[in-house]
Amino acid sequence: MKIGIVGLGLIGGSLGLDLKAQGQEIIGVSRKTSTCDIAVARGIADKASTDLSILREAEIIVICTPIDKIADTLQQLVPYLDSETIVTDVGSVKEPIVRACSQLWSNFIGGHPMAGTTEQGINAAQANLFTNAAYVFTPPTENAWGIDKLKYIAESLGAKPYICSPQVHDFAVAWISHLPVMISASLISSCLGETEPEVLKLAQHLASSGFRDTSRVGAGNPELGKMMAQYNRNALLRSLKAYSQNLQTIINLIEQENWDNLAEILQINQEARPKFLN
Amino acid sequence: MKIGIVGLGLIGGSLGLDLKAQGQEIIGVSRKTSTCDIAVARGIADKASTDLSILREAEIIVICTPIDKIADTLQQLVPYLDSETIVTDVGSVKEPIVRACSQLWSNFIGGHPMAGTTEQGINAAQANLFTNAAYVFTPPTENAWGIDKLKYIAESLGAKPYICSPQVHDFAVAWISHLPVMISASLISSCLGETEPEVLKLAQHLASSGFRDTSRVGAGNPELGKMMAQYNRNALLRSLKAYSQNLQTIINLIEQENWDNLAEILQINQEARPKFLN
Repeated sequence: MKIGIVGLGLIGGSLGLDLKAQGQEIIGVSRKTSTCDIAVARGIADKASTDLSILREAEIIVICTPIDKIADTLQQLVPYLDSETIVTDVGSVKEPIVRACSQLWSNFIGGHPMAGTTEQGINAAQANLFTNAAYVFTPPTENAWGIDKLKYIAESLGAKPYICSPQVHDFAVAWISHLPVMISASLISSCLGETEPEVLKLAQHLASSGFRDTSRVGAGNPELGKMMAQYNRNALLRSLKAYSQNLQTIINLIEQENWDNLAEILQINQEARPKFLN
Repeated sequence: MKIGIVGLGLIGGSLGLDLKAQGQEIIGVSRKTSTCDIAVARGIADKASTDLSILREAEIIVICTPIDKIADTLQQLVPYLDSETIVTDVGSVKEPIVRACSQLWSNFIGGHPMAGTTEQGINAAQANLFTNAAYVFTPPTENAWGIDKLKYIAESLGAKPYICSPQVHDFAVAWISHLPVMISASLISSCLGETEPEVLKLAQHLASSGFRDTSRVGAGNPELGKMMAQYNRNALLRSLKAYSQNLQTIINLIEQENWDNLAEILQINQEARPKFLN
């Protein structure tokens, strides 16, 4: 297959590395000539250009730009597409992207490979980044034209494809990815709000693994956190409000000294967590 | 020094291992004869008994029982104590313990070595458990009789001693240890409350490192979680209420689509977190 990749950063670059190694023909596009040169030199793409017209011959195009550039990129791409070309993206939110992109191109299928590192850019691209990762697709219908090809590509990367609606995807990632960022951020913010300097200083000295793990995702890239909230606003608010009610239940039980019910909730959680992590 | 240890589990056993290896004389007490035998066989204690009267000759006694047994143990111990004997404990909450124990014994100094593993019992005891750990003491006054000996012991274990009031300790551990348990538990509970089965199932499939880290301490030992809340109720409620307000601020910013202020909070957090973890 001839596969086009627009945006040769961590995700686009890593896709190119694996797919080209499998023998696919990869055509890359980046805003920078220097990135195009690196892509060809590192075996990420067979050829690469700053000009989208190079993608005329691609059968499948994966848009790997930041989330706020996906629809714009597709719009600029449309003049060069063959009517059968399948276009997908790798954005971490699906409903607003699929809504905008479906209007621009009927063969658009939303995609979200759930892999990454803290590093960014083409130099962070690595082989086997998607091995064992979930790869979600949100086609307009389950048997949409092109979905089989995309599933095949995901499996060839060692990833596990899931098919669902954009809304189900966004609700699910709100729970397991975007909500954790906000509750973890609130932990750091509330500690910083401690009004007794001696308590704050001691807390900073005593913090160890429990604080480290619970605060980790709340201290990630602020721009990414903001963009998650912006693009997945409704699903995130839905999760945050349910979370806030659960937290209030725990506060009430502690105020009422209802230790049995508190222990029961903690017990249910202890038993339920492995279902999220197997 | 002759050092008595009551309760030969993970903490008591690990203390005995290191202190005896340094050449201190360790006298152990456990409820079970079999534990006493293991303590002597493993080099945790020079001698051990189920009878508290064996501690008559100890200069320092460390009570390493579960938190709800500390004051009871001290009460039973008092008849055997010399007027200069220093008694300390290892409980993870200090104010209620120090209040009860100070009335029973004037040379009582609260202690909290902040180390542990998920394993329990004497078989989990290990050398160097306290290396680089914080070890908090809460003496009645900064120059209290015995505090220098306890600081010396902590340093000999490779731990870092801190001196503060019981209340400052409890407020600080509420922030960095007990609050994370409750907010992490609420994450699991709220996910489980998802009413759309397809969303819950997908969330369970997609959960990865962000969910894993943020949910970890909320799925720990339910009895321990309950006991933290029971013994540190006031400080934990203080932290939970401040946390809840911070969370509401984030919810409000997302509802108002105030992305700049949201990004600013995330930025402050990103910069502040390393101060808790160095």
